[in-house]
Amino acid sequence: MIRAAIWGASGYSGAELLRFLLRHPLVKVERVFAQTTVGKKVAEIYPIFNGRTELVFEPWEPDGSVTASDPRVEELDVAFLALPSGEAMRVVPHLIPRVKKVIDLSGDFRLKEVSLYEQYYRRKHTAEELLTMAVYGLPELNREEIRKAKIIANPGCYPTGVLLALVPALKSGIVDPEEIVVNSLSGVSGAGRSAAIEMSFVEVNENVRAYKIGFHQHIPEIINTLEAVTGLRVRLTFIPHLVPLNRGIYTTITASLTAEINEEGLREMYRNFYASSPFVRISQRCIPEIKDVLGTNYCDIGFAIDHQAGRLVIISVIDNLGKGAAGQAVQNMNIMFGIPEGEGLIA
Amino acid sequence: MIRAAIWGASGYSGAELLRFLLRHPLVKVERVFAQTTVGKKVAEIYPIFNGRTELVFEPWEPDGSVTASDPRVEELDVAFLALPSGEAMRVVPHLIPRVKKVIDLSGDFRLKEVSLYEQYYRRKHTAEELLTMAVYGLPELNREEIRKAKIIANPGCYPTGVLLALVPALKSGIVDPEEIVVNSLSGVSGAGRSAAIEMSFVEVNENVRAYKIGFHQHIPEIINTLEAVTGLRVRLTFIPHLVPLNRGIYTTITASLTAEINEEGLREMYRNFYASSPFVRISQRCIPEIKDVLGTNYCDIGFAIDHQAGRLVIISVIDNLGKGAAGQAVQNMNIMFGIPEGEGLIA
Amino acid sequence: MIRAAIWGASGYSGAELLRFLLRHPLVKVERVFAQTTVGKKVAEIYPIFNGRTELVFEPWEPDGSVTASDPRVEELDVAFLALPSGEAMRVVPHLIPRVKKVIDLSGDFRLKEVSLYEQYYRRKHTAEELLTMAVYGLPELNREEIRKAKIIANPGCYPTGVLLALVPALKSGIVDPEEIVVNSLSGVSGAGRSAAIEMSFVEVNENVRAYKIGFHQHIPEIINTLEAVTGLRVRLTFIPHLVPLNRGIYTTITASLTAEINEEGLREMYRNFYASSPFVRISQRCIPEIKDVLGTNYCDIGFAIDHQAGRLVIISVIDNLGKGAAGQAVQNMNIMFGIPEGEGLIA
Amino acid sequence: MIRAAIWGASGYSGAELLRFLLRHPLVKVERVFAQTTVGKKVAEIYPIFNGRTELVFEPWEPDGSVTASDPRVEELDVAFLALPSGEAMRVVPHLIPRVKKVIDLSGDFRLKEVSLYEQYYRRKHTAEELLTMAVYGLPELNREEIRKAKIIANPGCYPTGVLLALVPALKSGIVDPEEIVVNSLSGVSGAGRSAAIEMSFVEVNENVRAYKIGFHQHIPEIINTLEAVTGLRVRLTFIPHLVPLNRGIYTTITASLTAEINEEGLREMYRNFYASSPFVRISQRCIPEIKDVLGTNYCDIGFAIDHQAGRLVIISVIDNLGKGAAGQAVQNMNIMFGIPEGEGLIA
Repeated sequence: MIRAAIWGASGYSGAELLRFLLRHPLVKVERVFAQTTVGKKVAEIYPIFNGRTELVFEPWEPDGSVTASDPRVEELDVAFLALPSGEAMRVVPHLIPRVKKVIDLSGDFRLKEVSLYEQYYRRKHTAEELLTMAVYGLPELNREEIRKAKIIANPGCYPTGVLLALVPALKSGIVDPEEIVVNSLSGVSGAGRSAAIEMSFVEVNENVRAYKIGFHQHIPEIINTLEAVTGLRVRLTFIPHLVPLNRGIYTTITASLTAEINEEGLREMYRNFYASSPFVRISQRCIPEIKDVLGTNYCDIGFAIDHQAGRLVIISVIDNLGKGAAGQAVQNMNIMFGIPEGEGLIA
Repeated sequence: MIRAAIWGASGYSGAELLRFLLRHPLVKVERVFAQTTVGKKVAEIYPIFNGRTELVFEPWEPDGSVTASDPRVEELDVAFLALPSGEAMRVVPHLIPRVKKVIDLSGDFRLKEVSLYEQYYRRKHTAEELLTMAVYGLPELNREEIRKAKIIANPGCYPTGVLLALVPALKSGIVDPEEIVVNSLSGVSGAGRSAAIEMSFVEVNENVRAYKIGFHQHIPEIINTLEAVTGLRVRLTFIPHLVPLNRGIYTTITASLTAEINEEGLREMYRNFYASSPFVRISQRCIPEIKDVLGTNYCDIGFAIDHQAGRLVIISVIDNLGKGAAGQAVQNMNIMFGIPEGEGLIA
Repeated sequence: MIRAAIWGASGYSGAELLRFLLRHPLVKVERVFAQTTVGKKVAEIYPIFNGRTELVFEPWEPDGSVTASDPRVEELDVAFLALPSGEAMRVVPHLIPRVKKVIDLSGDFRLKEVSLYEQYYRRKHTAEELLTMAVYGLPELNREEIRKAKIIANPGCYPTGVLLALVPALKSGIVDPEEIVVNSLSGVSGAGRSAAIEMSFVEVNENVRAYKIGFHQHIPEIINTLEAVTGLRVRLTFIPHLVPLNRGIYTTITASLTAEINEEGLREMYRNFYASSPFVRISQRCIPEIKDVLGTNYCDIGFAIDHQAGRLVIISVIDNLGKGAAGQAVQNMNIMFGIPEGEGLIA
Repeated sequence: MIRAAIWGASGYSGAELLRFLLRHPLVKVERVFAQTTVGKKVAEIYPIFNGRTELVFEPWEPDGSVTASDPRVEELDVAFLALPSGEAMRVVPHLIPRVKKVIDLSGDFRLKEVSLYEQYYRRKHTAEELLTMAVYGLPELNREEIRKAKIIANPGCYPTGVLLALVPALKSGIVDPEEIVVNSLSGVSGAGRSAAIEMSFVEVNENVRAYKIGFHQHIPEIINTLEAVTGLRVRLTFIPHLVPLNRGIYTTITASLTAEINEEGLREMYRNFYASSPFVRISQRCIPEIKDVLGTNYCDIGFAIDHQAGRLVIISVIDNLGKGAAGQAVQNMNIMFGIPEGEGLIA
């Protein structure tokens, strides 16, 4: 059994991680750490877990360390960090010498250039020395590196949906890398579990709003990964929107076509590209919907061609807490420990 | 008092029209026509009108004619048609010789080229001879023609949001007319009041889907109007999405910038363009939200510049039943009858 | 023109009050007071008001006084207080000598017994001397007292829905006053505009929860008013629920029948009872729905008889911000100033 | 492996059944039958199953028989019927001689008195001879009978929530069986997957409505089961409401207390009553919420005492597609086949 612990287990990603891990046949969740809910049983904060776990939220120190207790951190196989960006980088250095593997769901180790991190996340990076050790955990693009990694920088929810949809088209050369527009629509759990008027029910329900246009922290993650993977210069505009859903990300990408191709050809190309990736599905309907992936670790991708304008439209859907966070973290863990990639994730 | 009647008054646009007209100080709604609800009181189908009107839905004939009754159609000043596309063109020819003004909310008289209509609406046009008589009813673009029109083709909901947002930028030459992408998110009332599994609550709630990419019937209305108004060749991709809202359209437009401009400059330019148009507001917040316009006839417009990619993002919001349908129809009526444009609409 | 000001204008009830007053033909809103939004234009916080008012939020002092400014408080005809309970009672004593009429939407002046207030609201009452001056503002029950009142205690949202539904049945003696159960379902705006995890979108959406069973602060308001109006001893259980709606209260009341009556008889009895009350409608459908009253000041009431169990079911629906708060406040104002009761409210 | 088939697999309950069975380690779903989707792959109608099953919907004959195909019906261990009431009774007689066990999710075999069935379901019962053979499948009340049953009448969603909440209190004699009021709030999937204006998004969203008060078909199921289990005469009013949720039933029960008891005593009593029932949880928070059980087979129960009125409030929550339909059907199957009761259901 893989012995796991979760830091930040009381947030939405942490709770979803717990849901996946509790039903994973090869994992035992040993300890859960939190801040505002310390001392409470998990089932008290999330009654859905009542009867399924007796775990109690434990605290951790400002320096990232935790009180020795059974099992000691040294005995853990994997530490998942479902903390906000900025907090993870204070905990990871403390864990590195102690646990076998670290999977960080925050944005702290995704960007290799500290200056970019500091520009987009608006804070100093305090664990710069670990950046080269961290592997970007998008299995469909770099499964082999993940297998050998010590630290996984689990991708952002938006980047997961964008990258899986765009990389095959870009690599095949059928679209102009400088004419790409991405509109993403996100459910509200993507913003985390917190008290804020602008996330209150009345403000979000029966409403839509775009936000952080041109300065969202996922922009460099998207563009740098695309450029690294394809070797191309990418000019891409990313526009995130908040829509009244609990979960799910709908990503609509438009790109100018530079070659002749039809929808069936696209499906064929993408099926080949993802032939060994069980969690990317080329949609049987032309256009995927969010409900096709809710609660799962799947990313469904579909296509439409605007013949009149000469543009390709690629659409991807994920569950932001599944393939966009906790599901992908478990997928990475499976790869790191040599377990079948879908263990605990399918169904 | 303007004596008005509504055909198709039992649908969502028809009911919203009735709501606006009942509180319009210069209008009297004399008769309401419907098909499935004939003989029932309006307040029976829409109890919100209980105590506010005693009107009863009356039938009309397959040829578009209605039974003589008081007041006779000949005594009406204005006929509003809130019928599905395809049905309006059967009624309008019957009304033209009898009523002073006709305002048609369907798509039947918006496209001047019959071939385009037949391609996008997938049916024969049976009132071709009236097409030249119909004026496209977007007051902010052609108020003067509306004033003199006999038939108004009230714009589609999506085109209203797109045109008001795009025309000033295109006319000013600051964006490339061949690099335009439009993503619109629509509430469900835009699809009308009808029984369909795909519009049922469970299928729409907690879900998002794009649809009719590349062949939505509003595409030629958008592109032809843009080209006519600006004299430019436009290459635009339009992607409509269904989101879980009752009402509202959120339109996010991306266009490549061809000139230096900042957000304040844009606001200034748009404020000038719409200086005499009380229903277009340049958003005080940078990014408008749907709730800013719910229940109103306003279109709010905001801007963001993606400096890194050199693109302008224009966002507009309307209520699809307000400025996107019934509100705009009343605005057109006001103009046609020489009444202040906002009468019955403000508040 | 009635010169009005609103304290607490930045909350949901305050904004709805402003919406009603801006379109009221006989009212001019002169000043708006707020706390967290001081110095900002109303249209900045609520862009829906953009172009309709230039009002700016002004501050008030801890003792309830406001800075002299034009018009001075002394020149106001009516002060509306849309403040949380506990804050209103600090402002009202300051206003009483200065403005003609005070309409308080909080719970501070609804209970005549200070001990009850302190038990249910869990704080000291600091303006006890004004309690006898305050008139409970439910026009359908005590229109005449309202006409002459200086201070109106505008009823709570839940009590409005319960009282209008129950009083005629209780007064007529057809139900057992000791066998009454009330289940109310409320939209989220009833909880006010504030940052709280339990009111965040993800926690409320796709969820229902009952709360404050047996100790909700509206319980004594409901029971005491019922007992005062009917002279009966009432044994009533009130169970409020939060449901995923922005607005509306659905109240389902069950009471044991003590007399023979059918649904048509009930409708007749209620129509008579409310014959001179334009805002209570006896539902044309048997069972009213929330959407029948959204955005209005109506209360719709319907009936069903459970013959097998010998119980009467009475259902009422209101908009919690309309008849449940701001609409009723305007109705009270109209009565106090001798204006037709529905002025500014119908439509 | 248990070889299973599903009739009516294209509806919401059928699809949820498939979801549970596909992840059940001891079950193989061999065939799925449907009507409107015949010939299509399951994954085409429900893309969420893409990659998880290759099953294709097959037709069945008007007389309930199906075409021989592999495996033949005779080789099946269990047939699940997720058909509308009225259709199941035409299929079951055909299956009885052929399959080992039949689990019927419809209302056709729940009432033992044909006259009651015909009164509440408004049709003739055509398989009366099988009624005595059918066992009411609420495991927490009659696990032993279920174990030996040939046909299971899987309980209705509302009755499941009501019975689990009420039986312990009634059996213990602490409440008056003639003073019971039940208000239930249901998500929309409870009404099945069908095209109907009143179930369309716009009609349900931002709305609440009660329906079928006094004549809902679940009333005799609730009352007869309560009377049979407790030996008491029950006078109960049941009021179902439709609320804007996809899934979940919130049941609020009020009953007059006839004995002294506090909330802790109630919890203790219920915990004892359900000591061997893993799917009934006595809520750790006083008041359960729908989200505590979404996607699961749990029923959570909580309590509040209205001391002033002398009433007990019992609240239960279930997922109408889980414990209210498909989950409970799988639980019944587990019991019938001697498998641990929670197999395939926990997680």
